[in-house]
Amino acid sequence: MEQQLIDWLRDNLPSHPRVQLGIGDDAAILAWSQQNHCVVTTDLLTAGVDFLLPQDAPERIGRKALAVNLSDLAAMAARPVAAVVSLALPRDGAHELALALYRGMLPLAEEFEIPIVGGDTNTWDGPLVISVTAMGETTAQGAWLRQGALPGDAIVVTGDFGGSILESQFTFTPRIHEALALQAHHEIHAATDVSDGLSLDLSHIMQASQCGAEVCLADVPIAPAAHQLAQQSGRLAWEHALTDGEDFELILAVPESAVAGVLEATHGGAPLTRIGTFTEQRGLRLTHADGSQRAFSPAGYQH
Amino acid sequence: MEQQLIDWLRDNLPSHPRVQLGIGDDAAILAWSQQNHCVVTTDLLTAGVDFLLPQDAPERIGRKALAVNLSDLAAMAARPVAAVVSLALPRDGAHELALALYRGMLPLAEEFEIPIVGGDTNTWDGPLVISVTAMGETTAQGAWLRQGALPGDAIVVTGDFGGSILESQFTFTPRIHEALALQAHHEIHAATDVSDGLSLDLSHIMQASQCGAEVCLADVPIAPAAHQLAQQSGRLAWEHALTDGEDFELILAVPESAVAGVLEATHGGAPLTRIGTFTEQRGLRLTHADGSQRAFSPAGYQH
Repeated sequence: MEQQLIDWLRDNLPSHPRVQLGIGDDAAILAWSQQNHCVVTTDLLTAGVDFLLPQDAPERIGRKALAVNLSDLAAMAARPVAAVVSLALPRDGAHELALALYRGMLPLAEEFEIPIVGGDTNTWDGPLVISVTAMGETTAQGAWLRQGALPGDAIVVTGDFGGSILESQFTFTPRIHEALALQAHHEIHAATDVSDGLSLDLSHIMQASQCGAEVCLADVPIAPAAHQLAQQSGRLAWEHALTDGEDFELILAVPESAVAGVLEATHGGAPLTRIGTFTEQRGLRLTHADGSQRAFSPAGYQH
Repeated sequence: MEQQLIDWLRDNLPSHPRVQLGIGDDAAILAWSQQNHCVVTTDLLTAGVDFLLPQDAPERIGRKALAVNLSDLAAMAARPVAAVVSLALPRDGAHELALALYRGMLPLAEEFEIPIVGGDTNTWDGPLVISVTAMGETTAQGAWLRQGALPGDAIVVTGDFGGSILESQFTFTPRIHEALALQAHHEIHAATDVSDGLSLDLSHIMQASQCGAEVCLADVPIAPAAHQLAQQSGRLAWEHALTDGEDFELILAVPESAVAGVLEATHGGAPLTRIGTFTEQRGLRLTHADGSQRAFSPAGYQH
């Protein structure tokens, strides 16, 4: 990492009692509390796929690169510990671009107390690539997994869905606070976050838990942006909600005994909504407004 | 990550008792032993800078991407725990390229017991980018840092130096075994690995430890490749040894009382050589064959 950027980061990154060594050293050293396991997640964002330059401001791109990793930690109810950031920067204007990316990351890092402890900053002849690896720690209650949903469990989601491409793909709030608050007080059988699409990520829980699901369309919280997008796309708003992806909301499998407690308050900020039930019968079925129930093939962003 | 690659990795990656969840899940979960701190390091390699395609075989590129991170762990005498790998692959032949990169990484991952626990595999319109983050744990003796060298400490190095561009930049052995063996039995005041160049990385210890150094040129182990390269470059072999970089050997600050024990055996495999002494007087001085001592400006790969 170039010295000028190291100096800027040392001046601007908040210090953290767990970080013994960080930016500008060979490696970072983190104090680790006893008994908590380490959760590791990584996401790499590339120009032309995850963002467009110069249309998307680099501050928004930097924020997104960290936020998607925080969402992965939230999906497992892991407390953020530290992140490392690697950049491949186009040579022209590399330093300014790096600063702008970090300016986008730092408020989020501060909000969720996840110090950026290291990285690798490179220039090259290609377009921008940004790779973030985040580490978290499990709490005393252990990590949420995709596996563990039982037939009869309620499907509960945070926030609303669809149309993220219009804005919220860059501005979403990772559901860390919600996950930790819910996990501390309620029994949750399984969870994931919605990166690929509500129906597709729900199917990941179904596969891992070997069950099916029924979703009541009228109960799915549809984002205003999904309605807006539907006017341009000719598709229905609920189709956008079920398949768009990058909502970065949580899907939870909540045992019936815990549903009332989970729904009676917002935990950490986001509204919580029950949208259906996990079932013995495999596959995903949607209950439409007319009461008819039809199979739905989970769809969304396929990697 | 695409399902086909996930399946291949699940079949080919060695399992590891500490890894509870890995490839194909939202995040990996690692068991963490009590009292050991977490060491995190990350390196991002780009086409055209760190390797050339198609000249360099992807197996060698994959191996290098993991090996440079292992060298960073060795520099701190940290035991490898796990790694995550993110790829930005050119669309054309992406799957085959990913497999070849992993084929290069897996033998090294097995040799140094560092399971690859996750990653993010993407295709795009740009050239290959490979980002690896490695986690290690400190041992009971604590981590080596660049800081801590004292005037009078011997400068001891593993292996030999120079000409890595001809071959060893891809084939070097990260000095994990040497670091752990030395740390278990000897007092080492400071250490780093040579990525930027012997003189430049030595100067990093000097800066962090606020001291200078004298190096006896006749004692510097010069790699055969440095002599070979000197015949093409018109520079001297020892200049290549001091400034080429990517040797990925260790530089150690060894107190006088420990020098004999450190040098009397190979620890983990690589030969150990004393090349000089850390000094109160700042700056780097080279003792030449004629006995003259001249200042030398540390040089190498500047990020």
